[in-house]
Amino acid sequence: MHEDLRIIGIDPGLAHCGWGVVAVSGSRLRPLAYGTISTKAGEELPLRLARIYDELAAVIIKYAPSELSIESIYHKGNPRSSIATAQARGVALVAAARRLLKVHEYAPAAIKKAVVGTGAASKKQVQFMVSSVLQLDHIPEPDHAADALAAAICHAHLRSYTILMAQAESSTSHRYRPA
Amino acid sequence: MHEDLRIIGIDPGLAHCGWGVVAVSGSRLRPLAYGTISTKAGEELPLRLARIYDELAAVIIKYAPSELSIESIYHKGNPRSSIATAQARGVALVAAARRLLKVHEYAPAAIKKAVVGTGAASKKQVQFMVSSVLQLDHIPEPDHAADALAAAICHAHLRSYTILMAQAESSTSHRYRPA
Repeated sequence: MHEDLRIIGIDPGLAHCGWGVVAVSGSRLRPLAYGTISTKAGEELPLRLARIYDELAAVIIKYAPSELSIESIYHKGNPRSSIATAQARGVALVAAARRLLKVHEYAPAAIKKAVVGTGAASKKQVQFMVSSVLQLDHIPEPDHAADALAAAICHAHLRSYTILMAQAESSTSHRYRPA
Repeated sequence: MHEDLRIIGIDPGLAHCGWGVVAVSGSRLRPLAYGTISTKAGEELPLRLARIYDELAAVIIKYAPSELSIESIYHKGNPRSSIATAQARGVALVAAARRLLKVHEYAPAAIKKAVVGTGAASKKQVQFMVSSVLQLDHIPEPDHAADALAAAICHAHLRSYTILMAQAESSTSHRYRPA
């Protein structure tokens, strides 16, 4: 019996940092746990960041994922909020590096495309598909947890495709040919 | 005999993260150590950030500063580089929070003004004044270490001013009057 692969998705943020762990067994995805780490604007920045680090580290130890999927960061809208997010993202990546997780980054449109089928999907569509793919009887709340699960689902899908390609390439008799 | 106050200045960056520790004894500033943590663009991001964390943590343990001075971050120029810097900054703040350092942020212009006397000072002027104030026989290399020392000097100056003001306010017979 083989161990399931476990993937953690993280939606980094200073005020709200979403996370979600899924187990991958063949083509089946099973949600293990998800949640959001929230910190208050009134708290000192280093303490907010340290709490994000500690809580993510605890989640990683508890659910033992071996791979991390995270949205690639890009500048959009309010620079102040991009910078706050980037500080939290740096902290999340160090928490992952400490437990030797492999980190995979995906552009926001790639995550939408992998989960919904189109890179232009709305937030609601992504949330609906996350709950459908993971057979949840509700939409994960808050949004940040759903976004984190979407990142994990994206990696689960693209990861098995990558493995399929690699297996096909190593076989000489049954070479896989892209259409 | 009283213990010197020790301040660490940090100039955060992903490729080059400068740091400098100064000891403050009354109005006298003494450089204890300074340096730059450099990481390679070819390395994986989580490993680069983890190395910045580890090396800063080692510096903080070795030189035992109790306060951290850091430039406040703001969006300028290349968004990609602001975001890389912000990720490194988040990591530096968690390393400081771990050792219970008090963190003080100063705008770039406030640091220039405190070190050179004008918020419009050039990088070269800041570097010259850093080496003059700390009685170094050379300009600290690379730039990032000099910028980190400038942040530490700024906090040392503004910090003693704040204390002077507080002391003056608590004295009824010799009240300090700003000019």
